[in-house]
Amino acid sequence: MSEETNILPEELIRLHPADIADRLERLPLEEAGALLRALPADLAGRALSEMAPETAGDLMEGFDSSLLASLFENVSAHVVADLAALVEGAKLRSLLDALPGELREHVTGLLAYASDTAGGIMSGSFIAIRADRTIEEAQQRIRQRGRDSQPDVSYLYVTDGARRLVGVLPLRDLVFARRDQRVGDVMSRTVRALRVDADREEIAREFEHYHFLALPVLDLQSRLVGIVKASDALHVAQAEATEDMQLMVGLSGEERVFTPWRRSLGQRLPWLYVNLATAFAAAAVVGLFEGAIQRWTALALFLPVIAGQGGNAGMQTLTIVVRDMALGEMTMKDGRRVLLKELLLALINGLAIGLTVGMIGWFWKGSVELGLVAGAAMVLNTLAAAFSGVAIPLTLKAVRLDPALASSILLTTVTDVAGFFFFLGLAVLAMHSMGL
Amino acid sequence: MSEETNILPEELIRLHPADIADRLERLPLEEAGALLRALPADLAGRALSEMAPETAGDLMEGFDSSLLASLFENVSAHVVADLAALVEGAKLRSLLDALPGELREHVTGLLAYASDTAGGIMSGSFIAIRADRTIEEAQQRIRQRGRDSQPDVSYLYVTDGARRLVGVLPLRDLVFARRDQRVGDVMSRTVRALRVDADREEIAREFEHYHFLALPVLDLQSRLVGIVKASDALHVAQAEATEDMQLMVGLSGEERVFTPWRRSLGQRLPWLYVNLATAFAAAAVVGLFEGAIQRWTALALFLPVIAGQGGNAGMQTLTIVVRDMALGEMTMKDGRRVLLKELLLALINGLAIGLTVGMIGWFWKGSVELGLVAGAAMVLNTLAAAFSGVAIPLTLKAVRLDPALASSILLTTVTDVAGFFFFLGLAVLAMHSMGL
Repeated sequence: MSEETNILPEELIRLHPADIADRLERLPLEEAGALLRALPADLAGRALSEMAPETAGDLMEGFDSSLLASLFENVSAHVVADLAALVEGAKLRSLLDALPGELREHVTGLLAYASDTAGGIMSGSFIAIRADRTIEEAQQRIRQRGRDSQPDVSYLYVTDGARRLVGVLPLRDLVFARRDQRVGDVMSRTVRALRVDADREEIAREFEHYHFLALPVLDLQSRLVGIVKASDALHVAQAEATEDMQLMVGLSGEERVFTPWRRSLGQRLPWLYVNLATAFAAAAVVGLFEGAIQRWTALALFLPVIAGQGGNAGMQTLTIVVRDMALGEMTMKDGRRVLLKELLLALINGLAIGLTVGMIGWFWKGSVELGLVAGAAMVLNTLAAAFSGVAIPLTLKAVRLDPALASSILLTTVTDVAGFFFFLGLAVLAMHSMGL
Repeated sequence: MSEETNILPEELIRLHPADIADRLERLPLEEAGALLRALPADLAGRALSEMAPETAGDLMEGFDSSLLASLFENVSAHVVADLAALVEGAKLRSLLDALPGELREHVTGLLAYASDTAGGIMSGSFIAIRADRTIEEAQQRIRQRGRDSQPDVSYLYVTDGARRLVGVLPLRDLVFARRDQRVGDVMSRTVRALRVDADREEIAREFEHYHFLALPVLDLQSRLVGIVKASDALHVAQAEATEDMQLMVGLSGEERVFTPWRRSLGQRLPWLYVNLATAFAAAAVVGLFEGAIQRWTALALFLPVIAGQGGNAGMQTLTIVVRDMALGEMTMKDGRRVLLKELLLALINGLAIGLTVGMIGWFWKGSVELGLVAGAAMVLNTLAAAFSGVAIPLTLKAVRLDPALASSILLTTVTDVAGFFFFLGLAVLAMHSMGL
């Protein structure tokens, strides 16, 4: 096996699991799988968990369930659940069956949380202690957990007898408290927490707003079930931003430059066909006015200008609305205020651009009528663009779709169809009055 | 003052500075300023630092320098430097003059770092201790700093006599070490750090990759000068993603839905004029073929289809490349590999879409020649789109501009101009062979 590749397992073993994942992701699937098998089981398990979900899923499909279960034996239930979520159906069932009893139960519980919620994102690397314990017992608990947990614990979470979160004890304070004091007497009782069903945007917002290093996650009975670290929130925020950018233009939300081309093709082509249908809707509008174009060919020159400018102005509005909705800076109830601002902007932008287009139309083709028609169509299309830029994401959200979904395709459909209709419709009216 | 507004200073005083900032941002500038003056000085200073830079800058312009200096007296130099960076020229000089001597020197030093680097982002809420101190002295240091520092300290940073970082001591380990041990004997010597000139993308990547809660920042002499927390990295990553999305479509990168409309207008209109110039470049191409369109009007119907499809396919490529470059998943040297993949995809997508467009052209207008011309132009334009989608961001980066800058405007210029040229050029050739 080491003859087929440049990387030896002995080289990998000294690396951080995230760096092992990096190296393996750049190899063909088979080589990466062979190297993973050659690593110590828990290191292989952790490296898997650091990979892009797509690659990790592909690798896991190639491993049999008992081998996978052995990789997961010394890995936390949260990590195993994240990985188990990447396989489906029979494979998932046989993997769960192969896990030791207690781990299986824990993982099954975690799998119930949606992957884009705090429950799906949280990790188990926290230390909890009951309020009626002493500081000395708390210190012992940390010492016990010290070996297997990451060294970046900064809070002790304090629970009552029913595992409900009642307070938090910064590790700093543990240094100064007397060893015989009760945890409950020293802890801070104000503690912000996330619910298991908090979504990605809410999580990112909470960290960005309050600058926490980590937040505890509570289930619906207010029991402490995990923590989300700021770095995990960073990860989901990046994924969310990538997804929004991609969804807007008809991509899956998860494609990367090195996604295998067959998969890219399967994800992009359907959206290109959707776009094609909308492009022919615009073409059909032009078709309605074919006779007018035949008599006044100069109209054809302005079609791309009217549509393109409307599309660009609309994309400015759409981009701001989609992003600010994702960042939680704009909610549904701000819709009216944002719409009014955008319509005002569109009116001014439209008049400025429309005047320029009109002048160019007049001087280029020597026709004041062409200038008037192009300028007026430009103003109307800019208004339509602003309206769509606000209305499309709000409507998508209202019907419980992602506000970004195919929004740029929808927007340019409006600006093409409306732009051609305004421009050619006004042109026909002008031609009537000109006696053409 | 309290008659003009619904918010009383007494209500604000109990809130987190980030929440105070939120409330004030929604008020007219004058009211927000009056409330800020009514708050205790250091709370007002911290609330200012939590505001959107634009608003904080506007508010500071309305305060005289000695008042500002009094707000900053008990605020860390890092926070003051972030705020001072929002004002310019004479205002900045008079503000610096009004600060107490030591704070002024510290702030001036920090202002030298670019705002989008680790030096500009870092905070001063870290605790450093020399390696030759004892654990007991380290504990005393934490106790001293306890009052004024945030409770989420999780590491002690260990330095030598010249303030160079030599190790790190997780707070956890401080709990167990004997009080007479030397810090240098207990600390961990492997410590990752950021340089002051690390850029936003590098910072986000480091946190996302290794899941740190905080990273120390070193100046060019390897001296410890601050820390970046994961939540700060989250903040800059969000700002970076927003900026990229906005730059692509001709926005400033910093606009929000509630940016005052005059400012929005000033930032958007210039880009709309740039887009207008490119739209007329495309119109000029159509103008070259005006005679052909006059003889064969059906061509006009396909103009928006060829250009629109090319634009959409190109936006898919562009979006993936821009985003993956920002995430550090694609570097300049991956350019060739990505270009080959995208061209392959474009060929297949182009053939599939081109065949469909060709069939529609044939059946709709009953002309097999129109179908052939439209289909071939579609394939060629999809290839041009893929090439531009990769080449535009790489070229922008090569000339040290942001790879996202106006990239969507540039891309649609190529797909419009090339699309019209391919389609109308092929149409003229077909018309010759048809004897039209």
